[in-house]
Amino acid sequence: MPPSELHALTEKIVAFRDARDWKQFHNPKDLAAGLAIEAAELQEIFLWRSKEELQDTVSKKRIQLSEELADVAWFTLLLAHELDIDLNEAIADKLAKNAAKYPVEKSKGSHAKYDEL
Amino acid sequence: MPPSELHALTEKIVAFRDARDWKQFHNPKDLAAGLAIEAAELQEIFLWRSKEELQDTVSKKRIQLSEELADVAWFTLLLAHELDIDLNEAIADKLAKNAAKYPVEKSKGSHAKYDEL
Amino acid sequence: MPPSELHALTEKIVAFRDARDWKQFHNPKDLAAGLAIEAAELQEIFLWRSKEELQDTVSKKRIQLSEELADVAWFTLLLAHELDIDLNEAIADKLAKNAAKYPVEKSKGSHAKYDEL
Amino acid sequence: MPPSELHALTEKIVAFRDARDWKQFHNPKDLAAGLAIEAAELQEIFLWRSKEELQDTVSKKRIQLSEELADVAWFTLLLAHELDIDLNEAIADKLAKNAAKYPVEKSKGSHAKYDEL
Repeated sequence: MPPSELHALTEKIVAFRDARDWKQFHNPKDLAAGLAIEAAELQEIFLWRSKEELQDTVSKKRIQLSEELADVAWFTLLLAHELDIDLNEAIADKLAKNAAKYPVEKSKGSHAKYDEL
Repeated sequence: MPPSELHALTEKIVAFRDARDWKQFHNPKDLAAGLAIEAAELQEIFLWRSKEELQDTVSKKRIQLSEELADVAWFTLLLAHELDIDLNEAIADKLAKNAAKYPVEKSKGSHAKYDEL
Repeated sequence: MPPSELHALTEKIVAFRDARDWKQFHNPKDLAAGLAIEAAELQEIFLWRSKEELQDTVSKKRIQLSEELADVAWFTLLLAHELDIDLNEAIADKLAKNAAKYPVEKSKGSHAKYDEL
Repeated sequence: MPPSELHALTEKIVAFRDARDWKQFHNPKDLAAGLAIEAAELQEIFLWRSKEELQDTVSKKRIQLSEELADVAWFTLLLAHELDIDLNEAIADKLAKNAAKYPVEKSKGSHAKYDEL
């Protein structure tokens, strides 16, 4: 198994944090709040845009989208680190769980939530 | 360079999606909304909890936290995929940009935003 | 001036809260988090729905929409109460400020943000 | 019954909107997204602040808090208007529903969710 890419990214983010002595602010509650706030900033880029305008928005706001998505990934990695959650395992577990909640034959082509399938 | 862990995770998520023919719903605007909604569900786990209760919450809600964080990571990877954004590059760029916005000597031990440093 | 409708609503919500001794949890930071979480639940009702499906969603999810919007209004009133902010004044101030940021002649028919007008 | 304060506020906001011909963008999905984004901006004012710092934040950020709360109330009123939801009724219904979900004797002094009481 090669050295983990997620681990390497997390190490850079934690080093950035520790150089600034910010761990004291990074309790999981505030990290989760920070994550939600960054996700809202990402979402704002698409606000009021019609379906037809989205491709143009994606082209013109490429740098901003990349920055906001990086912020989201940043907090996700930091929170996983603080909670000692392995994102590979967590995603694998979620894939298995969602496969049971959304069986292909019932959910194919539908955006219904599992409890309305 | 070893095969990318992020790439492998993304492939699994995209395969899950494509088996259900959900790409039709996954425009970037809805993916960003979905990400914000998952981040709120993650955040809700800590709502009303005092600083002193957080450790207990982290212990007792471990599975739920792992699931919600996986959902956030899931949408982050899917959005990066749809926008053709390399998260490694995006995070590296953001680290460089944040290093300029938050110089160690000014930001050490402070939670002030860069425009109030 | 007639007795204030906002005041009457706030009184009911505060009475509900005080009967349960919940003021101890209602610091402004958690109230703002609660508000964001309720707004996400409201938003989730429309997730993945196309423009063409919205009218149908509004009809079928009327009760759920009403409940989530009530939750948002509930926290908005509670936060205004805790911060001693008069929503009538706050909205009047914001109308004046937005009128300056979005002059009719520049913003008519455009969804651009004020810094891109 | 005196003329409704909520109705008067809504009329001002709708007039502001119509003068700019923005109704075309104000489908309920985007209004709900806008509401969530404004709630996140409000929440950001408290990010990283400890319980002990909150009073100071409330004092120093009074104008910003008032503006963000006005934005939240603005979108709440606009969404209620678009969905033809009477906020007085919606809040009265929610008070009755929450009274059943959170009976005083079980919920007093507890921040547990109704399904964990």
